[in-house]
Amino acid sequence: MVIETKKAKASLESLHRIFTVPEAPNSTLGTIEQAISQNLNRFLQDHIIATEYSLTEIEKDFCNANVPEQPSFVSDHTEFLLDKLVAQSVHTSSPRFIGHMTSALPYFLMPLSKIMIALNQNTVKIETSKAFTPLERQVLGMLHNLIYQQDDAFYDSWMHSAEHSLGAFCSGGTIANITALWVARNAALKSDGAFKGVAEEGLFRAMKHYGYEDLAILVSERGHYSLKKSADVLGIGRESLIAIPTDENNRIRIDKLEETVALLKKKNIKPFALIGVAGTTETGNIDPLDAMADIAEREGMHFHVDAAWGGASLLSNTQRPKLKGIERADSVTIDAHKQMYVPMGAGMVIFKDPSLVSAIEHHADYILRKGSKDLGSHTLEGSRGGMAMLLFASLNIIGRQGYELLIDQSVEKAEYFSNLVSQQSDFEIISKPELCLLTYRYVPESVKQAYAIATSNQKDTLHEQLNALTVFIQKRQREAGQNFVSRTTLTPTHLDGRSTHVFRVVLANPLTTKDILQDVLDEQRCIAKQSTLVYPELMALANSILLADAPITQALTTE
Amino acid sequence: MVIETKKAKASLESLHRIFTVPEAPNSTLGTIEQAISQNLNRFLQDHIIATEYSLTEIEKDFCNANVPEQPSFVSDHTEFLLDKLVAQSVHTSSPRFIGHMTSALPYFLMPLSKIMIALNQNTVKIETSKAFTPLERQVLGMLHNLIYQQDDAFYDSWMHSAEHSLGAFCSGGTIANITALWVARNAALKSDGAFKGVAEEGLFRAMKHYGYEDLAILVSERGHYSLKKSADVLGIGRESLIAIPTDENNRIRIDKLEETVALLKKKNIKPFALIGVAGTTETGNIDPLDAMADIAEREGMHFHVDAAWGGASLLSNTQRPKLKGIERADSVTIDAHKQMYVPMGAGMVIFKDPSLVSAIEHHADYILRKGSKDLGSHTLEGSRGGMAMLLFASLNIIGRQGYELLIDQSVEKAEYFSNLVSQQSDFEIISKPELCLLTYRYVPESVKQAYAIATSNQKDTLHEQLNALTVFIQKRQREAGQNFVSRTTLTPTHLDGRSTHVFRVVLANPLTTKDILQDVLDEQRCIAKQSTLVYPELMALANSILLADAPITQALTTE
Repeated sequence: MVIETKKAKASLESLHRIFTVPEAPNSTLGTIEQAISQNLNRFLQDHIIATEYSLTEIEKDFCNANVPEQPSFVSDHTEFLLDKLVAQSVHTSSPRFIGHMTSALPYFLMPLSKIMIALNQNTVKIETSKAFTPLERQVLGMLHNLIYQQDDAFYDSWMHSAEHSLGAFCSGGTIANITALWVARNAALKSDGAFKGVAEEGLFRAMKHYGYEDLAILVSERGHYSLKKSADVLGIGRESLIAIPTDENNRIRIDKLEETVALLKKKNIKPFALIGVAGTTETGNIDPLDAMADIAEREGMHFHVDAAWGGASLLSNTQRPKLKGIERADSVTIDAHKQMYVPMGAGMVIFKDPSLVSAIEHHADYILRKGSKDLGSHTLEGSRGGMAMLLFASLNIIGRQGYELLIDQSVEKAEYFSNLVSQQSDFEIISKPELCLLTYRYVPESVKQAYAIATSNQKDTLHEQLNALTVFIQKRQREAGQNFVSRTTLTPTHLDGRSTHVFRVVLANPLTTKDILQDVLDEQRCIAKQSTLVYPELMALANSILLADAPITQALTTE
Repeated sequence: MVIETKKAKASLESLHRIFTVPEAPNSTLGTIEQAISQNLNRFLQDHIIATEYSLTEIEKDFCNANVPEQPSFVSDHTEFLLDKLVAQSVHTSSPRFIGHMTSALPYFLMPLSKIMIALNQNTVKIETSKAFTPLERQVLGMLHNLIYQQDDAFYDSWMHSAEHSLGAFCSGGTIANITALWVARNAALKSDGAFKGVAEEGLFRAMKHYGYEDLAILVSERGHYSLKKSADVLGIGRESLIAIPTDENNRIRIDKLEETVALLKKKNIKPFALIGVAGTTETGNIDPLDAMADIAEREGMHFHVDAAWGGASLLSNTQRPKLKGIERADSVTIDAHKQMYVPMGAGMVIFKDPSLVSAIEHHADYILRKGSKDLGSHTLEGSRGGMAMLLFASLNIIGRQGYELLIDQSVEKAEYFSNLVSQQSDFEIISKPELCLLTYRYVPESVKQAYAIATSNQKDTLHEQLNALTVFIQKRQREAGQNFVSRTTLTPTHLDGRSTHVFRVVLANPLTTKDILQDVLDEQRCIAKQSTLVYPELMALANSILLADAPITQALTTE
């Protein structure tokens, strides 16, 4: 490559060469590729989550807002990336990174993703994607089959039909949820007589036509934040996403749901969509989908299931019963970049009825002509890459039985960890795992004892200090860079609905061992005691409560 | 890899191994990777656009909706992908593929994209992306600088500020446009007294509060179809996206824009956004942005510029003046996967005012906490990959001057081709290139002569047949797989606004040569004559018109 000669200098000739296929594997680019692979392998084998550099320090390397005037050598820039970016990135695939839904990826995806990048197909239309279009339609068919289990004749009819679609592949769960609710909104406010429908005439005129006082979307209080975003984008308004209270297992309360529906009807507010959560982001619990489907059916609501995270569990016949009722949903969101182990950027919404997407169909003159099989005529996004290919490859190479093993062992590991936490005198489980997600916190033994006998005011104070301690431990552990759990806020019934900070753990990574889990707890215990501000104060309060109580207890027992 | 032994069989041990780093470069996976690279290089060196298999034939390979029960060998599945997918995909990077905005990619992106895939960062939050967050903010800063050219102090203040954002990286131009209009809508219908704003209360209550009869978005009739989609999603309604007529150069007519604004005001309809197009998708023309900015300013409209395709031209000081006025836009869409030569999935919306994104800010308990620098608090998408890295690398390695050369030569090539078309007696230019996009059609010489003297009815018939011929040529050329141009429908003034099918050519690929351009025309001419249905009929009609006219002409000249 001329661009690699003595001095990087832009010339048309050198620029042309960067677009041509490198001839030999021992070319400059070949050597650089090897160096990158070696560096990446070293990085990925290190089980360190992130080095201790602070964000402010890292920002110094990324502070110049000028596009560089002169070109750089590929080798020089690669060195910069390896040194300043790779080394300062988060090791999301580390078996010690158990705080979020990213996991290690199967290594076969690295060479295969080369196909995706190099071919650079645009799946918006067949002219720029050809075989990638039927492939994506097949992947959507497989997912549809996984959820709805229709017969072969069904898929023969609809999978490759130009006028229909079994779903939409998209960049992630948020776009999938927006798409589902967009379809639901447009179907609820469809054309009617002289009114051309909300898609054509907009929400204001639609509401006047239908005479509703307002619209509403119903979901449990554990619904994902993307649903609020959807309600905002779609013009429904965040307030109209109504949060239904949950039971002690973080599942929507059917009685409260019924009450809300009745109240809305009385107020002439139209609840056009009901959302079931199959794997809440914060606690991993699954709503009673069957009971919800009954209500949605009765009330004529679109029933959407947000299974962005939990949907992959359908690949396991062991876990499948936990999602009972999902096959009655009008639409389902599933992210393949979560428990299906493909790289970021693989969301999907699947529609039960292949003609439902007509509510959002779009056409244009130069592409997406009517009758074409262009995927872009029913997606929120326009130009898109060939990401479905990586899911296709994973489904084939791992197979359903392989996925079943992976998913079952992640649930078993979560149950193991839940038991391990419960066995510790100074930890407390907050939500037990239904799939592979659980929450807990650190509570010194004496604080547990004190809390049990404390007055309501004392409980508040203890609780506040425990919250501060949880935040301290989580932050310090993250900064230390050895282990990572995330943190969220819940309102557990057994803590009288008090706002409670908790550690959140997702055990999706197949490489996470029991030793690592023990190590996570040991480190947290150790960090807790390092908190020179919170810990001593908390212990002092606990002891004073216990001491004040001691004489009485003694008196009672000696009587 | 155990999964590669005699029979693929899912066992926990074999599954664990697919998640661990392969030890040696001569491992099974190493060998597969080499095979893929060789196959891809062969494919990319072949300048064939697509093989002749029909879509229906290809669909047969992608028709099973069952997730395979058993795992497959990586090697077997790779073979399937190379044979059935790669070989049947579209060679978008071929220098003969000049019909859409995809081009060849610089080869250094192949090894670098490995970093992106292997690290699998989630840029929604710092906890899962660390250095990728400042990198993405810097890229947005560079693009902001490219458009708005603020001083260093500006970027020092805002580029890395937690409460601000210079833009949003997203999967493509459609999401970018939706984001811009979402911001515009929420700002236009913001909180006011007891009214909490459209984001909270929804569009129906917002409209009642503000007392508007309706909303409107204004854009020229050449606006991209994603804008209609945006109007639908955002609850504005497609009808409220008002198409303003264009002049003979496909640019918005300012007089018509003024008329429309006045009319809307009279009807109490609020035009809250005006969209300038900087590079229309169909003809590549640029709206008079300065004049539009004046009107937007005067009327208090959000001024958005859709420069998804044309925005890259700002990297060239030669082309920059053509986009004069873009620096007055409130927001700008630019796709890096178009003329910035990075792979699919790199859209951006840039905001002039760093606090504008507060109109769409979202928070959640477990991530995106207030005060954090998490990118996800102001993006439409949630979880996202580290695509900004590839744009960062390209900007550094190619440099502004390198981009300038690439962009300038693509414009020069389009001008060359435009001249070449004009020189042919049997072709007709429909829209000349302003950047590197032009449209034209095939018109036999005798048809040109006949058209000039035909009656209005005869013109209609000739026109209809020419349209049919254009469609025939474009389809047949695509099917032949040697060259590819796209096709769209325009209403040129010089053809009395008749609906006209045209060939559409985008000359972004640096490897497209003058010989190829000549070959494209030669092939089209040749295909035209093969049309046994349209061509003879068209020629017969033209000849009859010319013959009928001949005696008169003769009589006149001999008089």
